[in-house]
Amino acid sequence: MGLNKAAKVIAPSSHLLDIATLATKFDRMRAESSALAQPLEDEDCCVQSMPDASPVKWHLAHTTWFFETFILERFEANFQPFHPAFRVLFNSYYDGVGQQHPRAQRGLITRPTLREVWAYRQNVDQRMQQLFSLAWPEDSIQTLAMLIELGLHHEQQHQELLLTDIKHLFSMNPLKPPYKSVEAMFEHVQQPVPSGSEAAQWQRFDGGIVEIGHDGAGFFFDNETPRHRQFVEPFSIASRLVSNREFMAFIEDGGYKNSLFWLAAGWDWVTQEKLSHPLYWHELRSQFDATWQEFTLSGLQPIALDEPVAHIAFFEAEAYARWAGARLPTEAEWESAAGNTPIADHQGTDYFGRVWQWTTSSYAPYPGYTALEGAVGEYNGKFMVNQYVLRGSSSVTPVGHTRLSYRNFFPATARWQFSGLRLAKS
Amino acid sequence: MGLNKAAKVIAPSSHLLDIATLATKFDRMRAESSALAQPLEDEDCCVQSMPDASPVKWHLAHTTWFFETFILERFEANFQPFHPAFRVLFNSYYDGVGQQHPRAQRGLITRPTLREVWAYRQNVDQRMQQLFSLAWPEDSIQTLAMLIELGLHHEQQHQELLLTDIKHLFSMNPLKPPYKSVEAMFEHVQQPVPSGSEAAQWQRFDGGIVEIGHDGAGFFFDNETPRHRQFVEPFSIASRLVSNREFMAFIEDGGYKNSLFWLAAGWDWVTQEKLSHPLYWHELRSQFDATWQEFTLSGLQPIALDEPVAHIAFFEAEAYARWAGARLPTEAEWESAAGNTPIADHQGTDYFGRVWQWTTSSYAPYPGYTALEGAVGEYNGKFMVNQYVLRGSSSVTPVGHTRLSYRNFFPATARWQFSGLRLAKS
Amino acid sequence: MGLNKAAKVIAPSSHLLDIATLATKFDRMRAESSALAQPLEDEDCCVQSMPDASPVKWHLAHTTWFFETFILERFEANFQPFHPAFRVLFNSYYDGVGQQHPRAQRGLITRPTLREVWAYRQNVDQRMQQLFSLAWPEDSIQTLAMLIELGLHHEQQHQELLLTDIKHLFSMNPLKPPYKSVEAMFEHVQQPVPSGSEAAQWQRFDGGIVEIGHDGAGFFFDNETPRHRQFVEPFSIASRLVSNREFMAFIEDGGYKNSLFWLAAGWDWVTQEKLSHPLYWHELRSQFDATWQEFTLSGLQPIALDEPVAHIAFFEAEAYARWAGARLPTEAEWESAAGNTPIADHQGTDYFGRVWQWTTSSYAPYPGYTALEGAVGEYNGKFMVNQYVLRGSSSVTPVGHTRLSYRNFFPATARWQFSGLRLAKS
Amino acid sequence: MGLNKAAKVIAPSSHLLDIATLATKFDRMRAESSALAQPLEDEDCCVQSMPDASPVKWHLAHTTWFFETFILERFEANFQPFHPAFRVLFNSYYDGVGQQHPRAQRGLITRPTLREVWAYRQNVDQRMQQLFSLAWPEDSIQTLAMLIELGLHHEQQHQELLLTDIKHLFSMNPLKPPYKSVEAMFEHVQQPVPSGSEAAQWQRFDGGIVEIGHDGAGFFFDNETPRHRQFVEPFSIASRLVSNREFMAFIEDGGYKNSLFWLAAGWDWVTQEKLSHPLYWHELRSQFDATWQEFTLSGLQPIALDEPVAHIAFFEAEAYARWAGARLPTEAEWESAAGNTPIADHQGTDYFGRVWQWTTSSYAPYPGYTALEGAVGEYNGKFMVNQYVLRGSSSVTPVGHTRLSYRNFFPATARWQFSGLRLAKS
Repeated sequence: MGLNKAAKVIAPSSHLLDIATLATKFDRMRAESSALAQPLEDEDCCVQSMPDASPVKWHLAHTTWFFETFILERFEANFQPFHPAFRVLFNSYYDGVGQQHPRAQRGLITRPTLREVWAYRQNVDQRMQQLFSLAWPEDSIQTLAMLIELGLHHEQQHQELLLTDIKHLFSMNPLKPPYKSVEAMFEHVQQPVPSGSEAAQWQRFDGGIVEIGHDGAGFFFDNETPRHRQFVEPFSIASRLVSNREFMAFIEDGGYKNSLFWLAAGWDWVTQEKLSHPLYWHELRSQFDATWQEFTLSGLQPIALDEPVAHIAFFEAEAYARWAGARLPTEAEWESAAGNTPIADHQGTDYFGRVWQWTTSSYAPYPGYTALEGAVGEYNGKFMVNQYVLRGSSSVTPVGHTRLSYRNFFPATARWQFSGLRLAKS
Repeated sequence: MGLNKAAKVIAPSSHLLDIATLATKFDRMRAESSALAQPLEDEDCCVQSMPDASPVKWHLAHTTWFFETFILERFEANFQPFHPAFRVLFNSYYDGVGQQHPRAQRGLITRPTLREVWAYRQNVDQRMQQLFSLAWPEDSIQTLAMLIELGLHHEQQHQELLLTDIKHLFSMNPLKPPYKSVEAMFEHVQQPVPSGSEAAQWQRFDGGIVEIGHDGAGFFFDNETPRHRQFVEPFSIASRLVSNREFMAFIEDGGYKNSLFWLAAGWDWVTQEKLSHPLYWHELRSQFDATWQEFTLSGLQPIALDEPVAHIAFFEAEAYARWAGARLPTEAEWESAAGNTPIADHQGTDYFGRVWQWTTSSYAPYPGYTALEGAVGEYNGKFMVNQYVLRGSSSVTPVGHTRLSYRNFFPATARWQFSGLRLAKS
Repeated sequence: MGLNKAAKVIAPSSHLLDIATLATKFDRMRAESSALAQPLEDEDCCVQSMPDASPVKWHLAHTTWFFETFILERFEANFQPFHPAFRVLFNSYYDGVGQQHPRAQRGLITRPTLREVWAYRQNVDQRMQQLFSLAWPEDSIQTLAMLIELGLHHEQQHQELLLTDIKHLFSMNPLKPPYKSVEAMFEHVQQPVPSGSEAAQWQRFDGGIVEIGHDGAGFFFDNETPRHRQFVEPFSIASRLVSNREFMAFIEDGGYKNSLFWLAAGWDWVTQEKLSHPLYWHELRSQFDATWQEFTLSGLQPIALDEPVAHIAFFEAEAYARWAGARLPTEAEWESAAGNTPIADHQGTDYFGRVWQWTTSSYAPYPGYTALEGAVGEYNGKFMVNQYVLRGSSSVTPVGHTRLSYRNFFPATARWQFSGLRLAKS
Repeated sequence: MGLNKAAKVIAPSSHLLDIATLATKFDRMRAESSALAQPLEDEDCCVQSMPDASPVKWHLAHTTWFFETFILERFEANFQPFHPAFRVLFNSYYDGVGQQHPRAQRGLITRPTLREVWAYRQNVDQRMQQLFSLAWPEDSIQTLAMLIELGLHHEQQHQELLLTDIKHLFSMNPLKPPYKSVEAMFEHVQQPVPSGSEAAQWQRFDGGIVEIGHDGAGFFFDNETPRHRQFVEPFSIASRLVSNREFMAFIEDGGYKNSLFWLAAGWDWVTQEKLSHPLYWHELRSQFDATWQEFTLSGLQPIALDEPVAHIAFFEAEAYARWAGARLPTEAEWESAAGNTPIADHQGTDYFGRVWQWTTSSYAPYPGYTALEGAVGEYNGKFMVNQYVLRGSSSVTPVGHTRLSYRNFFPATARWQFSGLRLAKS
């Protein structure tokens, strides 16, 4: 079946930057994508491990296509496409831009090669820099800046997906190759302190009328708007994420074997797919004992018990919560709670930067939501059915791509994202 | 795959009736089920036309099983089941009661025959009347009354499903047999006045904090509770349902051929299933012209253009609304609007009794919702995922089964229900 | 997917009978079909348990359609069809006669009811008797006799399928209803002596040029022609069929768990379908032991160990043979061997009347085979791909429907037929 | 589902070569495989376009695995595998050698990279040459020579599959990349003279007892044995293959639209898959006309009308033959006819070297066929079901891999092979 979704580009409103700043930001962001691909072989970048995932090469080309199609085609004098076929090959789902290559066949495109895609990136980057060097009237600058910001946030979404998808690909290989060594993974960032070693606390909120959604300062996607009021009953939310240790207790208590913990459709799914643990867990059995390992971007590793559980579906999160005598939070509860924790505290909490957190809210338009005009804004809401909202961000979300009002969304069975949960109760 | 849902029995709270009234009500309700089966042949009652539907015989037996299992087994001295195998054969989805016969194979059960199922019904009805004739302590009466009311509302749900499912079965037969003649359909009730001949009006509501859900007086299912507050932005809602005439304009405007009107998953579905009109519409083409007919419980009939469009999926309702420059209402909007139309007016409006109305709300627990104890209350919420709420009631909903707070729910692709839509806008 | 095959009507050549004899024979054969349906309820006759099977009602109607379409339509003055829709509803696969109702939806046709189908049979039978009473020119008599003989053999094929299909339907019912009691099954025929109690003997044949196929005397289907020569190497064939006792030894030796015994496609099938025994075997496990039962037309019965194993697929027969150090015979070997056992002996042997016997021969045209003209002969060979030939006949094959040259055929995975095996070796 | 078959390695009997000749032959054959991969990018070599096809890298590794597993492991002192995981990764279907990586996931193995596979090949080649340099007792030489010959013929099968599979992969790419230019394709060999420009002649054969199968001189696979007698009726066979021009006449005559030309299962397949022409044909429509092109290893080219039609399934070949008033030959007819055309003539005829030719014979063991001992000979016959034999060889069959008795085989729906047809009639 496959998702029609890859990265959910949604039209932004943004405070505007000056052109020079944009040019610098553009170069840095594009370089970060390149850096992510450095540890990979050409072959790693070509293959698609399932219809929901895309090849790395496709991510690199599609983000480039975005700038070529929505900016160069509009602003460049005598625009000529780098390659006429790329308009179709690297279009994800914009019907307004024309046809798309079938999503499930992205992995069959061995040509253009990765080498040619690098050339495509270089070409578009140079033409973008040339654009930046020109003098533009103020209103063009505004449009340009808006589209570039949009393109850069789009690029960041694909940076996260690139890591998510390569992890899935490598997990399918019996050699279980690492993307980077553990040391290399953390050479630029401080390794986070495990979060689950102390008991979680219930934090109480009074509810009442709260406001959620983006307030219009800085970049945002339009599914975060309009900012609006919701009435929230009093609720409690956990001070930290559910850990691997806690999730293992659920497994050991027969969590995957008892229909009473599950939504009916979740139970059908677990039974059909014969699931008994999170996506990347492996139980190694010897004659003496059994130990659990987890496939990571650094290969197979012993499960870090005090880390947040990751790579679970909505159905698993929901079943865990019922087993634990709690429930998932709603979007409004999550956003109120996260927003009422001092920002400084976010370093010490795990609302952001660890795992995306499933909410019980289905992905739906906010009251008064309207789509933007034209192909960029095309279909902003077209994924708003049969998906559930995740909040926060994950360990592979690029720095600067995190927002209190950010709405991520996936179907109730999606597991290959870095997705976990935080408990709530009424 | 199939639904795990047939009739959604959910635990009630009820104002209590005296035993004699209950006994009378019981007899009348059971007789109504029998009457519904009268026009049918034995073979009609045995066959299952698709996994989502059930045979008429199964509906008749399952509703009987409900009384036998939840009431006789508990209250009857020296309880003996009518037939030991029926506990499994006619259990729908109550894990607490044990195993269930596979839903998709309900149509293979040619034995027990319909004749034996009638005997089963008669036997249970007699034993129930015997129960009614005994003297019970007050608390037993309370429990008994609660369970009987639940069983009767459960029976009503299956009365509606019986008609819904037999319509589907007959629609699959090239002979297109009628269930009843047009005249017979309306011999007991006044034929409704077509509703769509005048232009719909927008009725404006101010929003603010509204209360929805059941207030506890009279019978209700627990998914209607707790009554709670929601914040609703100002909105408008149409004074009447969308008619066949209006829906035909959508078709003629290329509604089924333009992806821009559809949710992405809806477009995939329409394309995959090659859909171009509501479920029971048939276009008869001659060399001169094309005319539309609709399969009804009275066989093929010319489409009544001013009647509400029926048998459309959530995806079709949602696409129609986008095409019309409007949207579906939320549950809270629908309930506020319907509740603020004087009850007397309900006769003149079509909030109830014509078609179930898709809302944009996914089926989710109300804040503070909790499931009841035991098998009766088992799984009250286990269907709360990937389904959309429908409000109101339909032309085949039994009299007395209609409530302002009633929440019906089906997946976004379900079409065999009597489902239509009412427009809203912000 | 489903078979496109129900009964394989193939054009006959026949020695001609006089009209009166035909009329008598016609009545007797039609009455036998009616008698087969007597133990059944209306509901039993309506349901289709899988796409490969057909409802009893359909068998009764289709065989009637055959006489109406191929005889009455041609010979009756002022022919009027009994019901215009039946031409499509009860056409199996004759493109020359026009459209066919989809095979997998035969079970949805609750109307016409069984009662109406009985009326259809009666009507056609009367019109047929009227035909018989007329004076016909000699060449018409020849054609008529040929078509009637064909229709009667066609009817016999459906008599066997009726029992085969009702057995499958009842096997799907947890109540495991019997079609007839054991006593009733054998009230007209002598219960056969179990065949497997003594060790099978190898009977040696010299091979050389042999002739197989029908020699033209009496009725035959055209796939049995032309009679032709084949060169056969010396071979041995078992004096009796493989018994349930022997097949159980295969199971107990891990026959279903060892890929080395199976064709690669057979192993995939066994693994995919999780098979571990013949279709209708049931292992009843208590805490002390396990006993095997077999579902029969008389309900669940202890397995008769010395009876021939039945209801196994080509893949299972082939795997058993490899396990036993032998192989399946070819068609030519089987026909040579069966033909060289004195006919008198057939009473004492089990070449006929117990189970159809899988051969290693794929179903292909004999050299020089040609299809007949017109719709009756349409598609004689259209099933000659990806099917394997079975020889002999079974315990439910009607008396008089057995022939040395008879070629039955089914896909390598078909199990619901009364199919077993006889070993051979080079 | 996918084939379990890639290259059909079957145990040979062979006349023996001296070691030095073997060493030279080994080097030459291995170099030819390398040469075939030269025009390809690393990415081209990694991807699997469908479950039936394998990545080029897999072909290169699997053929190397064959020598490592069946020769080095047995003859090399202190054998150490190049990489312990390769035993599973590059095992195709030898259960005797242990587990196999799932066939449909061969394309997910981005590691080992192509570079590492080249190193694997080099390593095994060197170790093989070291073996060749040792002094061996005579019986070891015999075994060694037998296994090496087997390995080299196995390698040749994969050379053909490599080209077949890369053609399929490239055909899925909208850029339709060429493997080699037309000129480069024929730089080493003389471009064949088109074969279909003159009317085909019927060549008459008397039939009678013929001998087919391999006579034991030189290399062969065991499915070609034992040589045995068959009785063949007189028949005629066409002097040349069916051409593209002739096949186009079939299309233009409604060949793909008329069920009467097709086997029932073939018609279901054509309808289901919406087929209307051979696999690699493309109809380019302008407003003025329509022209046909064919995807080739040199990219899209105008269809060469007088070349043999290629890339058709058994079902298409069989339907064409019926349309043409003829039929496919049997194996025995084909081998008799091809064997009775003077070998010199084979240059002038097209029995070999153009397209594989479907026969009407299902793939079955010859009388007296027995499998060899051990893993090399494991499962020689395990594919002998639901497949049809093709005879001759194709334009991508390696020189020296052609034999009169060679039996290729594929399911009736396989189209990605270079498969066509030659007509026969009785």
